[in-house]
Amino acid sequence: MQVSKTLDYAVRSLTYMGNDPVLKRSMKEISEHQHIPLSYLAKIMRRLVKKGIVRSMVGPDGGYALRRSPKEIKLRDVYEAIEGEIRMVDCMDRDNICVFYDSCTQLPVWDKVQMSMIKILEDTTLQDMLSKSRGKSARPN
Amino acid sequence: MQVSKTLDYAVRSLTYMGNDPVLKRSMKEISEHQHIPLSYLAKIMRRLVKKGIVRSMVGPDGGYALRRSPKEIKLRDVYEAIEGEIRMVDCMDRDNICVFYDSCTQLPVWDKVQMSMIKILEDTTLQDMLSKSRGKSARPN
Repeated sequence: MQVSKTLDYAVRSLTYMGNDPVLKRSMKEISEHQHIPLSYLAKIMRRLVKKGIVRSMVGPDGGYALRRSPKEIKLRDVYEAIEGEIRMVDCMDRDNICVFYDSCTQLPVWDKVQMSMIKILEDTTLQDMLSKSRGKSARPN
Repeated sequence: MQVSKTLDYAVRSLTYMGNDPVLKRSMKEISEHQHIPLSYLAKIMRRLVKKGIVRSMVGPDGGYALRRSPKEIKLRDVYEAIEGEIRMVDCMDRDNICVFYDSCTQLPVWDKVQMSMIKILEDTTLQDMLSKSRGKSARPN
């Protein structure tokens, strides 16, 4: 049960963009700065654009920027754009997926873990993560 | 970030054994009752035996049983026997694994999720999961 590399890359790209939300960033710039392979980043950006977190502008002055202010981007939105719905176990929201569903005694525990995680990700915005990086260099030397 | 099938199988096997901790269960019995492939179950049992959660008795009257009482088996023990240490991100307990470690602003959030999950799994024993199944049939018809 770990944070995927894809989610890590997505959060880092957004934090990078959020540090100066007015600027448009090229895919190449984000890729180089954040050490993310370009083709991997392209897939991530497509998901973030699709979910209305990032906007893509074409043309000579094109690039990527946040579609909403960092205050309005919850970590939960980012998680769900990348991983889909937060769900600890597959049977949690579906009936009849498992013959043990009715007698399952671990489900309430995973539900508790899930609820706790959702609350933390719901309560954390991109702005919170930017604030924490104030005073620290976001650029590796 | 989901509960693995291996962990699900381990918890179900332990709950099955815990429902009548005096009885020894054969691998075949657990496998058939819990719909777990025998070779998969063998791997799980080896880990649970190694971590002192289950004991294995050889001979004609041999089988598997809990080594400790259900009250003394925390869900955290089971998680760690199967998945290793609870760690949301690889860099959490190691230095210099990532060039962004010092400026990383998502680490505190994953740390919070991790702490919350550890607390829930630490506070839940096998006994708690057995109590919740009282009155429900653990056997599929």
